[in-house]
Amino acid sequence: MSGSVLGNIFKISTWGESHGFGVGVVIDGVPAGLELNEEDIQIFLDRRKPGTSKFTTKRKENDLVKIMSGVFDGKTTGTPISLMVVNEDHHSKDYSEISSYYRPGHADYTFDEKYGFRDYRGGGRSSGRETIGRVAAGAIAVKILKELGIIINAYTSSIGPVSIDKSNFDMNQAKENALYMPDREAFIKAEKYLEKCIKEKNSSGGSIECIIKGLPSGVGEPCFDKLNAVLAHSICSIGAVKGFEIGDGIEASKNTGLNNNDSYYYNEKGVICKNTNHSGGITGGISEGFDIKFKAYIKPTPSIAASQNTINKSKENIQINIKGRHDPVIVPRAVVVVEAMSAITVLDMLLLSMTNQIENIKRFFTK
Amino acid sequence: MSGSVLGNIFKISTWGESHGFGVGVVIDGVPAGLELNEEDIQIFLDRRKPGTSKFTTKRKENDLVKIMSGVFDGKTTGTPISLMVVNEDHHSKDYSEISSYYRPGHADYTFDEKYGFRDYRGGGRSSGRETIGRVAAGAIAVKILKELGIIINAYTSSIGPVSIDKSNFDMNQAKENALYMPDREAFIKAEKYLEKCIKEKNSSGGSIECIIKGLPSGVGEPCFDKLNAVLAHSICSIGAVKGFEIGDGIEASKNTGLNNNDSYYYNEKGVICKNTNHSGGITGGISEGFDIKFKAYIKPTPSIAASQNTINKSKENIQINIKGRHDPVIVPRAVVVVEAMSAITVLDMLLLSMTNQIENIKRFFTK
Amino acid sequence: MSGSVLGNIFKISTWGESHGFGVGVVIDGVPAGLELNEEDIQIFLDRRKPGTSKFTTKRKENDLVKIMSGVFDGKTTGTPISLMVVNEDHHSKDYSEISSYYRPGHADYTFDEKYGFRDYRGGGRSSGRETIGRVAAGAIAVKILKELGIIINAYTSSIGPVSIDKSNFDMNQAKENALYMPDREAFIKAEKYLEKCIKEKNSSGGSIECIIKGLPSGVGEPCFDKLNAVLAHSICSIGAVKGFEIGDGIEASKNTGLNNNDSYYYNEKGVICKNTNHSGGITGGISEGFDIKFKAYIKPTPSIAASQNTINKSKENIQINIKGRHDPVIVPRAVVVVEAMSAITVLDMLLLSMTNQIENIKRFFTK
Amino acid sequence: MSGSVLGNIFKISTWGESHGFGVGVVIDGVPAGLELNEEDIQIFLDRRKPGTSKFTTKRKENDLVKIMSGVFDGKTTGTPISLMVVNEDHHSKDYSEISSYYRPGHADYTFDEKYGFRDYRGGGRSSGRETIGRVAAGAIAVKILKELGIIINAYTSSIGPVSIDKSNFDMNQAKENALYMPDREAFIKAEKYLEKCIKEKNSSGGSIECIIKGLPSGVGEPCFDKLNAVLAHSICSIGAVKGFEIGDGIEASKNTGLNNNDSYYYNEKGVICKNTNHSGGITGGISEGFDIKFKAYIKPTPSIAASQNTINKSKENIQINIKGRHDPVIVPRAVVVVEAMSAITVLDMLLLSMTNQIENIKRFFTK
Repeated sequence: MSGSVLGNIFKISTWGESHGFGVGVVIDGVPAGLELNEEDIQIFLDRRKPGTSKFTTKRKENDLVKIMSGVFDGKTTGTPISLMVVNEDHHSKDYSEISSYYRPGHADYTFDEKYGFRDYRGGGRSSGRETIGRVAAGAIAVKILKELGIIINAYTSSIGPVSIDKSNFDMNQAKENALYMPDREAFIKAEKYLEKCIKEKNSSGGSIECIIKGLPSGVGEPCFDKLNAVLAHSICSIGAVKGFEIGDGIEASKNTGLNNNDSYYYNEKGVICKNTNHSGGITGGISEGFDIKFKAYIKPTPSIAASQNTINKSKENIQINIKGRHDPVIVPRAVVVVEAMSAITVLDMLLLSMTNQIENIKRFFTK
Repeated sequence: MSGSVLGNIFKISTWGESHGFGVGVVIDGVPAGLELNEEDIQIFLDRRKPGTSKFTTKRKENDLVKIMSGVFDGKTTGTPISLMVVNEDHHSKDYSEISSYYRPGHADYTFDEKYGFRDYRGGGRSSGRETIGRVAAGAIAVKILKELGIIINAYTSSIGPVSIDKSNFDMNQAKENALYMPDREAFIKAEKYLEKCIKEKNSSGGSIECIIKGLPSGVGEPCFDKLNAVLAHSICSIGAVKGFEIGDGIEASKNTGLNNNDSYYYNEKGVICKNTNHSGGITGGISEGFDIKFKAYIKPTPSIAASQNTINKSKENIQINIKGRHDPVIVPRAVVVVEAMSAITVLDMLLLSMTNQIENIKRFFTK
Repeated sequence: MSGSVLGNIFKISTWGESHGFGVGVVIDGVPAGLELNEEDIQIFLDRRKPGTSKFTTKRKENDLVKIMSGVFDGKTTGTPISLMVVNEDHHSKDYSEISSYYRPGHADYTFDEKYGFRDYRGGGRSSGRETIGRVAAGAIAVKILKELGIIINAYTSSIGPVSIDKSNFDMNQAKENALYMPDREAFIKAEKYLEKCIKEKNSSGGSIECIIKGLPSGVGEPCFDKLNAVLAHSICSIGAVKGFEIGDGIEASKNTGLNNNDSYYYNEKGVICKNTNHSGGITGGISEGFDIKFKAYIKPTPSIAASQNTINKSKENIQINIKGRHDPVIVPRAVVVVEAMSAITVLDMLLLSMTNQIENIKRFFTK
Repeated sequence: MSGSVLGNIFKISTWGESHGFGVGVVIDGVPAGLELNEEDIQIFLDRRKPGTSKFTTKRKENDLVKIMSGVFDGKTTGTPISLMVVNEDHHSKDYSEISSYYRPGHADYTFDEKYGFRDYRGGGRSSGRETIGRVAAGAIAVKILKELGIIINAYTSSIGPVSIDKSNFDMNQAKENALYMPDREAFIKAEKYLEKCIKEKNSSGGSIECIIKGLPSGVGEPCFDKLNAVLAHSICSIGAVKGFEIGDGIEASKNTGLNNNDSYYYNEKGVICKNTNHSGGITGGISEGFDIKFKAYIKPTPSIAASQNTINKSKENIQINIKGRHDPVIVPRAVVVVEAMSAITVLDMLLLSMTNQIENIKRFFTK
């Protein structure tokens, strides 16, 4: 089906497996006239690349993106933009053994059930390399949003049981540490926790928080394509994401109306403000014009070296030890994926909002 | 845009405002040959109706559904099914005051920002009555799924700070109490909590858990229409839902791989089983063939009688007390909405899975 | 599937059978702030109504439309607009006989093959009454386009072998005669031809030409949603349409490049003009800014009183004479359907074109 | 927008310009388990390649396709298939002149109007090379349809004023002559006609007829996605197509009901037959189970060496002579494009028909 196509106006089609020729994406609906080159996209891809810290896989990939269409004289033409990254480093022999069994927590079993068989090398289509297409497309969406004054910023908010403390919040810290945590103390604790995990041949989960600034009010299409709903869809489609909340989320469910309602007020300059943001910037599924705030919860990396029970294709119960290369934690690398997916979705919804009022449409066509 | 259309094959279009002529839905893609009558749908609508307990609004509506097309001789014809419920009880005067200001926590402000103005009576399109179309369509989806051995069951898992205790789980209890909680002790505590809320002119949030039994493996379309992602979209589109988690969700993010991975094994009859269900029945975005388990987190009802600060359309800061009829908690009424949306989405994805393998397609067309 | 949903931004869902409760449409994506009432829509429905001339069916229907949602204080709210027309005059007994056999040229057989059975009364979903939903939605699209200076005008260009002569073209004539032909001489010939058909218990086909004035350049989304392609889809979805051509169409295929290319030139006022319009106003699938011109070819009405061979459900070869009410020609009634479908499609594509250039998007969000 | 994405289940996204890095397509929804290799696709691409006859452009391209994803161990995996053809032969200098003016009959002007500017080299996205992605995807659709006993065959039915004579019909002839006409006499006349065109620095149009055999009944989704409507969309999206007709098409509009209705009858073996096929195999928008027959009308190639009037970007009226390489007729090369688009559309609609009846769905899931 269309499982690999997302969007209404800004529409992306991703392709590629871990050990195939390459991975990529075709983006349709990119407005013409935007300055764009490979560097704009490479910056984002470099943030997800493996091998950049002691906590990420040692796989050596440059992941260099190539723009194959849709750009002329340094500007987008409005025609589909095809981006590709060639797979350089794939050790088939690392994964040949797993063709016969199903790794716990991975999509091996479910892909076999769905399709009858699967490309078992390195996770095939369910591999983390599938996020390259997302991030590449997201880089373009981010650039367009920036032109419109909309900024997206995500960071690691927790690793396992270690959460950041908002009173220590410092984005510069995030950019300097390998876990992308904007709280140095939390980072140090999390580092220790992960070293323990590695020693135990185990792995950790975590969470990512994302803030979107500058989004105008009125974005989101009730009642099914509410902004929080399409963001939930987009973010939950990222591998390993097991939970999504907007604003206070789970905490809101335990609270009362008086404590949860945000109150608007006019400040002395006549600008609408609010003192709290329990809603996360979205009410009735439509953006309010204040910061959008949401969180994604990520399960622990399933590939661990410790012994695990599972089954093989000969219907036997066996024990396995996963060898090869695997991340003890993927959360830091998923931060840019969360930014990318938010950008893609927010841009698509922003473009849809242009047709909400007849007066805006009339003004648009009266030049 | 298509904010009010949802689905790929089983496609629903809802319409209607709180105080307009009525509310309804058109469902396209209903397979032909299914026995269907108003009663099949009315059962579900009655579960969401206001005025059925002391904790729900006193609005008197029969909410009788009428099938206007798509059924002949008691069976679905395969053509679009149009369902309508006429609005009987709408006291415009109850809401006339609010045309001038924006109620905190409601979509008044965001609808005005999006469309330039709004039908301010009773919440208009953002009213809970919009869920009638969803539930009516969901009733049909539930019936089809039942024919395929797939059962959906949801219940209140928490009200405010009061959660059910799984060791006391009893679904019969849920059907007997007004909060639809399958744990009598928790219900009693929650009842007390709500009486306190009402006394304080306040409201409460809560959460709903949903279990889907009997779904075959292989359902879900990576990488964007993963089953957990489309469920997140569907559930988060329900008003007041602020969080969604699949399986262990938030707990998974704090856990380790060894504790979170589910291990498959063959029992003595050669059937695939697993001892844990941390995944919630979905891995790699595809159903495993085990129970699907997810949770929706709902914010407190925004309409409270207590005094609140807000703004009016003349750019003034004012104080208001919301009069009229409102639920202190909506969670029990949202349970059937969660079942409905799950059914609609799961059915759509199940139908999409029919085309995954060439062998199945060939067998289908060889009669 | 989504066979009954059409559009990207301006999206319509039609429903209803010939002998069910009623027929209607839900329109999503109507911009807010447009003045709208039942009269705006009724004008269009009256043009398709049966019983208005000696050449159209004697069925007595008022076909009064009701707006059930999406309009408040006389203006569209931006929420879905649900329109309904109740079926008043349906003589089930007129059609009871046909439940056992398949009328030639009708969809009886194909609906049975597709769905296993069908609502055999009066054509069910394949009845011409299905066009009520299209025309009602089209009326709204026409109104919006008018606000933007875009006018759509269609007329009968031929009945059977009788074609209009462009040198006699007079739109006032069309509005005065029952065949809606803008050439009085052609009308007189066609009238005679139809009287002969009726006498012979036969029927006639014909063609409809449509001109769209005032559409800006740049509308149409290559390479699949080219404007001529989406128009072809839209128009060919109308029952009985068997051919579609844009501009010179079939004649172009017989011509040479030198004769078929339109040349642009600047007139003395510096405005772009062209002396010919072989292209029909669309090149490369995108509107040029000149008149759009296309034609729809319609087969003869299948219901004729003359004897015909066919089969029945008991696998027998039989002869039938169709009784009851039927049009000897449907072309004049289809003119408003062609206008409606053009409007719906052109509006949808016009709205999509708003996001083609980054400069336009930036200007839109800078207020 | 989504102008470059087509389909519901079998969904294709094309990309690429005439003088960019390459052209290609991503196909989502290909069922898993189909044997597939580059040769399956190359056969089709070779039929559209330039430089294969005296009537086609002398551009030297091998147009070798590469499968970059979605195939493992020689079989489709069910994941997106990305296909690419690198552009080898692009003489930018041939086209540099045209950056300053608009060629008559080409999309130069409309692309500039839509996007603000264009890649003027060789037609950019509006170039015929865009059909490579279509044909590559079509090759896969054709292969799947073949497995289901469905065969698509198209051929040139006319060049300019020269039409084939059905009584001389011989498909072997078509495969042997450069114009792909299944009538040797017509081919000889057409050849003479084209030589005259070339001498006059002119070009010709023509038409293509297509027959689809073996399609089961019940395919097509009324009322908007009728099979003839989606085919019209698909075929009319091919560059230079200006008309589409199904069955008798234009001739039907001049005929009477008695002559146009096809009558079904049971032959002595109890099989449903019909003696005529005026409908072209589709009634009520749904396939009957008989041959589908349609025609596409193609305008003359706009690029001619003869002098033409036009305008340039400095708002001047000028005269031009188009140099460089261009086809005097494109119809023979478009035959495989018509087959490809039919296959893509018919397959998509066939897959959609699998969910029409509840009994079929129940049987599917009962293994």
